[in-house]
Amino acid sequence: MQLPYLFIFPLLLAAASDALVQDFCVADLSLPAGPAGYPCKKSASVTVEDFFYHGLTTPGSTKNKVGAGFAAAFDAQFPGVNGLGVSISRLDLEVGGLVPIHSHPSAAELVLVAEGTLTFGFISSYDNKVYIKTLNKWDVMVAPQGLLHFAINTGNTTVLAFASFSSQNPGIQTTPLALFKNDFPTDLVAKTTFLDVEQVKKLKALLGGTN
Amino acid sequence: MQLPYLFIFPLLLAAASDALVQDFCVADLSLPAGPAGYPCKKSASVTVEDFFYHGLTTPGSTKNKVGAGFAAAFDAQFPGVNGLGVSISRLDLEVGGLVPIHSHPSAAELVLVAEGTLTFGFISSYDNKVYIKTLNKWDVMVAPQGLLHFAINTGNTTVLAFASFSSQNPGIQTTPLALFKNDFPTDLVAKTTFLDVEQVKKLKALLGGTN
Amino acid sequence: MQLPYLFIFPLLLAAASDALVQDFCVADLSLPAGPAGYPCKKSASVTVEDFFYHGLTTPGSTKNKVGAGFAAAFDAQFPGVNGLGVSISRLDLEVGGLVPIHSHPSAAELVLVAEGTLTFGFISSYDNKVYIKTLNKWDVMVAPQGLLHFAINTGNTTVLAFASFSSQNPGIQTTPLALFKNDFPTDLVAKTTFLDVEQVKKLKALLGGTN
Amino acid sequence: MQLPYLFIFPLLLAAASDALVQDFCVADLSLPAGPAGYPCKKSASVTVEDFFYHGLTTPGSTKNKVGAGFAAAFDAQFPGVNGLGVSISRLDLEVGGLVPIHSHPSAAELVLVAEGTLTFGFISSYDNKVYIKTLNKWDVMVAPQGLLHFAINTGNTTVLAFASFSSQNPGIQTTPLALFKNDFPTDLVAKTTFLDVEQVKKLKALLGGTN
Amino acid sequence: MQLPYLFIFPLLLAAASDALVQDFCVADLSLPAGPAGYPCKKSASVTVEDFFYHGLTTPGSTKNKVGAGFAAAFDAQFPGVNGLGVSISRLDLEVGGLVPIHSHPSAAELVLVAEGTLTFGFISSYDNKVYIKTLNKWDVMVAPQGLLHFAINTGNTTVLAFASFSSQNPGIQTTPLALFKNDFPTDLVAKTTFLDVEQVKKLKALLGGTN
Amino acid sequence: MQLPYLFIFPLLLAAASDALVQDFCVADLSLPAGPAGYPCKKSASVTVEDFFYHGLTTPGSTKNKVGAGFAAAFDAQFPGVNGLGVSISRLDLEVGGLVPIHSHPSAAELVLVAEGTLTFGFISSYDNKVYIKTLNKWDVMVAPQGLLHFAINTGNTTVLAFASFSSQNPGIQTTPLALFKNDFPTDLVAKTTFLDVEQVKKLKALLGGTN
Repeated sequence: MQLPYLFIFPLLLAAASDALVQDFCVADLSLPAGPAGYPCKKSASVTVEDFFYHGLTTPGSTKNKVGAGFAAAFDAQFPGVNGLGVSISRLDLEVGGLVPIHSHPSAAELVLVAEGTLTFGFISSYDNKVYIKTLNKWDVMVAPQGLLHFAINTGNTTVLAFASFSSQNPGIQTTPLALFKNDFPTDLVAKTTFLDVEQVKKLKALLGGTN
Repeated sequence: MQLPYLFIFPLLLAAASDALVQDFCVADLSLPAGPAGYPCKKSASVTVEDFFYHGLTTPGSTKNKVGAGFAAAFDAQFPGVNGLGVSISRLDLEVGGLVPIHSHPSAAELVLVAEGTLTFGFISSYDNKVYIKTLNKWDVMVAPQGLLHFAINTGNTTVLAFASFSSQNPGIQTTPLALFKNDFPTDLVAKTTFLDVEQVKKLKALLGGTN
Repeated sequence: MQLPYLFIFPLLLAAASDALVQDFCVADLSLPAGPAGYPCKKSASVTVEDFFYHGLTTPGSTKNKVGAGFAAAFDAQFPGVNGLGVSISRLDLEVGGLVPIHSHPSAAELVLVAEGTLTFGFISSYDNKVYIKTLNKWDVMVAPQGLLHFAINTGNTTVLAFASFSSQNPGIQTTPLALFKNDFPTDLVAKTTFLDVEQVKKLKALLGGTN
Repeated sequence: MQLPYLFIFPLLLAAASDALVQDFCVADLSLPAGPAGYPCKKSASVTVEDFFYHGLTTPGSTKNKVGAGFAAAFDAQFPGVNGLGVSISRLDLEVGGLVPIHSHPSAAELVLVAEGTLTFGFISSYDNKVYIKTLNKWDVMVAPQGLLHFAINTGNTTVLAFASFSSQNPGIQTTPLALFKNDFPTDLVAKTTFLDVEQVKKLKALLGGTN
Repeated sequence: MQLPYLFIFPLLLAAASDALVQDFCVADLSLPAGPAGYPCKKSASVTVEDFFYHGLTTPGSTKNKVGAGFAAAFDAQFPGVNGLGVSISRLDLEVGGLVPIHSHPSAAELVLVAEGTLTFGFISSYDNKVYIKTLNKWDVMVAPQGLLHFAINTGNTTVLAFASFSSQNPGIQTTPLALFKNDFPTDLVAKTTFLDVEQVKKLKALLGGTN
Repeated sequence: MQLPYLFIFPLLLAAASDALVQDFCVADLSLPAGPAGYPCKKSASVTVEDFFYHGLTTPGSTKNKVGAGFAAAFDAQFPGVNGLGVSISRLDLEVGGLVPIHSHPSAAELVLVAEGTLTFGFISSYDNKVYIKTLNKWDVMVAPQGLLHFAINTGNTTVLAFASFSSQNPGIQTTPLALFKNDFPTDLVAKTTFLDVEQVKKLKALLGGTN
C-alpha cells in the first residue's frame, strides 16, 4: 500500500531546523530580537494559544488624569503576530477622556470606533495641516506612519475603540512624556520647543520629570 | 519682523511635484496602480475624507446561502490607506452563518470579535495542523499570510467581527469559488483535488460554474 | 615595501563579528530562524558547498498515487540561499501524473519545462479566472504569490520541470491535504467547503485524515 | 567581422520601455509619485546632472528666530536619489542657534558635524530616555526613524553639519509647528499636550497659528 | 433564488480601478516604470499569454567571440513577472564558450545546468575569496546579489543552463564592457583598475570603446 | 494620588523581552547576525555611546600605493546603525590619490566633498555610459546600488570626502582586488576579463594574488 505522495513535503522540509518551514514565526520572547523581529519558536511548541489573545477583553484602567485606558496586543504580548506586520490595541476613554498627542515611529494606525463618539486627528508634516474628524460607531480613520495624532472623547458616553497597526511593534512616542517625563534639562526643552521655562517646569512636575 | 525659520521646509519642499513631500500617498484611483499601490493624489486635493471611511457602519447583506455579510475598507474603497500597509473589513454572520475556506495572498489577517461567538481557524502549510479557537467579544486571533482559514458563527446570536490586514489590498481567494465558480474543466478540478466528478458537477451547479 | 591600501577593508571590517561583513548569509540551520531567515554561519566555516546543491539531480520518487516526484532546494536543504530571496525545486511527473491544487504563501513561482508536455494553471482571486496553458520544452510560466495553481502531465512521456521561487522558503499549502489530511472535523470541512459529508469522509480516508 | 556577444544585452533589454532596464530610476517630477517614489525619466533624457547636486554649497538663510539655515537634497530637489533610499541635507547654525524638536516619519538620520560644536539628542519612545551628546568636527551620531530629536549650537562658533537619511524623502515634522503653526483649536492643543491655554495662544501668535 | 454570497467580493472590489484588486500586476510597458516596477495593465486586457513566455525555447546566437548565447525573460520581455520578484534567462555556451565577469546589481542568481559541464564561480567582497565549482546536469549554484561571477563551458559538449533571479529586473553589469566598451578615458581606466594603458587601449579596440 | 496614565506603556511593554519595544536595535556584535542584521542589545545596556561614533575624526592611513585613506562607520564599527538602513564612511585622498573601481552590492552611495576637488563617476549597466563629474566643496553625487564607481583627486590639494550609504552594511567589492588579489587562476581571469595573461600575472604580483 502506498503513501499519498504529498507526505513528501513535510518529511523533506522537516529534515532541518523547522523554524522556517512553517509559514509563520511565533516569537520566542526568551531570545533577543533582531531588526525583523524575534526568533521563531520551534514548531513542536507552537499552539493555537500563540495566535489567540484574550487580553483585550478587559479595559486598561482609566483611573488616571486623562481618563484613558489602554491594552496592547503587540508582539511582546501576542507572540503570534511576530513577523506578520499587523497588531492591535484597545482604547477606553471616559467622558472627556483623551489620548495625548503621540506618534508611532514604526506603523500606520487604523482606528475603529466601537462605542461612543471619538474625535480623532493627525497633523501633516508637509504643511502642518490638521486632519480632524468626529467618528461614531464603526467609523474608521487612518493616521500615516510617524505623524502626530490624538483622540478625544467628545461625546456624552464612554468611548471604546480599537487601533490596528501596520507593524507587530508600532512603537509609541507620546509627545508630553517625551518632553517632560524625563531628565531632559528644562532650558533645553524650553529652547527646542519655544515653551516658557515656567511651563516646562510645571509639566515636569506634573508628569514626573527632573532637571 | 522675521519669519520663523521653519517656513523654509514647506517652501523648499514644495518646489517640485508635492506628491512625496507629504508623509502619505492618498490613492488617485483614476490612474493605473503599480506593484506598490496607486499614484498619489496631489496634496491640494487631499481632504480629511480621504482618511475616513463610513462604509463599515452598515453590514453587507447576509441574504445569501452562507448567511454572511461583508464590507471592505481596502484601498479601492478607502484611498487613504494606499501605501500604508494596513486595511480593515467588516463581517456579519447570521446564526449558523460562516465564511468559507479562503486565503489572503497578500496579507496576514487579525480578526476581532465585536458581537457573538465566532469559531475561527487556519491551517498550517507545514503539517496541515488546524489551529482552531472559539472567540467571544473582543477576543482576537491572527491568521498568517496566504494560509487557508475560515470562520463560523457557533453561537446563538449574530456575529459581528472586524478583520484587520497587513496590506492595503490583501486579496481574497475563496477556495470553493476558485474551484467551482468558473470554467475550470470538471475533470481537471476532480483530478487536481481528488474530488469525485459528481461532487464537482454538483458544486459547479450550485456556485455558477461551467464545463 | 607597502601593502596595497585596499587591504584596509577586510582588516577593518573583520574587527567585529564578521557575519554581516560578507555579502551573503549562509544559514546556520542549528540556530532558530527569525522572520527574515536563519542566522548566518561564521565566514570561516563557509565553503563553496554551501552555495552548491546536487540534490536535484535525482528525482523524488513517483511511486505514489499521483505519479509525481518532488525535490526541493529551499533554505532548509540549500543553506546558501538564506536571505537571497530565491530558491528552486524539481518536479517529475509520470504519464498522467499531476501536482494537486496548492499555493505558496510566501513566493511567486516560475515554472520551466525541461522534458515532456505540462499543462499548468493558476486561478485569479479577483474573478476566479483560470489562467491555463500547455507548456513544452523550455517554455516558462509564472504563478503569482499565494494563488492556487496546479500542473498535469498531458503528454505521452514523462515530464521534468523546475520551479523557481521568489523566496528562499516559499511554503507549500496543498489544498486536499490542508482539508483532508488532518483532524479538521468532517462537518466543519463540509460546511466551509460546500462539499458533501460523504465526499469529505472518503477523502479523509484516502489521505489519512481523522474526525 | 563579428560583434562582441555582449552587445546582446542592451539590444535585447532595450526592446521595451527602457525605464527599468537601467539600474536607477531618476525621478520624473512632472508625473505623480506613488508609494515607492516617482516614475522614472526615460534613459535618453538622463544626464550626469541628475545624479549631482550643487545646492548644498550655499547655506540656507539663518536670518530667523532660531539662527538656523537648512538646505535639502531630497528627491524633490535631487531627482537622482529617487528609489535609492538615501538623501542628505545641510544645516547651518549661528552661535546659539538650534533646530527645534522634530522627527522624520520615514527615515533614520545620521548627522555629521563639519564645523563647530553641536549638541545633538533624540528621545526614546520606550522610556523617554534622552540620548544626548556633544559632537565636534567629523563626529557622527544617528537618530532612529520617527523619534523626536533636536540639535543646538553649544559652541562659540557657527556650526555646519550634514544629515544623511535612510530615505529619498525622509519627511520632517517639527513639533512646535505641528502644534502651533496651524488652525489646530487652542483648547484641543492644550488638552492633548497638557500645556496651558495661555502658552498655546502665545506660541500660536509667535509661529503664525490661528484659532 | 439567491446569489451565492461570495459574488460580493468581485462586485465590491471592482467598484474602483481594478488594477490592484487582482493579486498580480502585469506590466503595462507603454507607461513609465517606477522604483517598484511598471504600472499594471487593466485586468480586462490581461490574458494567459502575459504569464507565459516562449522566448527561451530558442537560444540566443553564439556566433560571437565568446561562444555564448543569451535570452532573457525579465519584465521587459515577460510582463507577467512585474512586481513578482522573480525572473529567468537562458544561457547557451559552445565548447570553450564563457560568460565574462559580471554582476547583477539588483538580484541574486541561481543557475541550473541542463546540458553539459559548466564551471561557475563568484567572488566574495569580504576577502576576495573565489567560490568556484564545476556543475553537471541539474546541479544548481547560487551567486549573491551584486557580486562578480562568471561561467565557463569546461566540458566537451555545448552547455545549456538557466539562471533564475530574485528580481523581475536583475540588471547586468559586465565588467569588461563597463570598463572598455564606452568613452571612459583610457588614463582613468588604467589608473582606477591598475591596468597598463596599452592593455586598456587594446581592449577598447576589441570591444568598441573610444578615448 | 494617581499616576499619569501613560506610565502604562513602558510597564506593559516591558512585560516581555524588551528588545523590540524600543524603536531601535543596537547591534549585539557578540551574537551571529541574520539577513536583516544583528540581534539587539538589551535596552538596559544601551547607552548614548552606541549611537555616537568618533572614529571618523582621524583619517585612515594614506601611506599606500593609491594615496587613499578609508575609515568606516558601518554596523560592525557603529552598532547604533543596525537595522536603520544608513551608514557613513570617510575618505582621504592625497594629491593624485584615487579609489579604484568598486561597487557596493547592498547599497547606494551618496558622496559629499568636504575638502579639495574630487572627480567621481559611476558606470551604467544598461549602456555602459560613464556618468562622471568633478565635485568641489559641499557638492554631492550619488551612485546607484551595485554599479561600478570610482573617485580621483584631480585637484592640487588633498581631498576629504564622506560617503553615506542606504544600508548599515553596504559591502565593498573592489574590482582589481576581486580579480587579482586571490587565487583565482590566471587563465580563468584572463579568459573571463579579456585581459592578457601577462597583464593578469603582473597585477597578481602587484596585489598579492597567486596561481
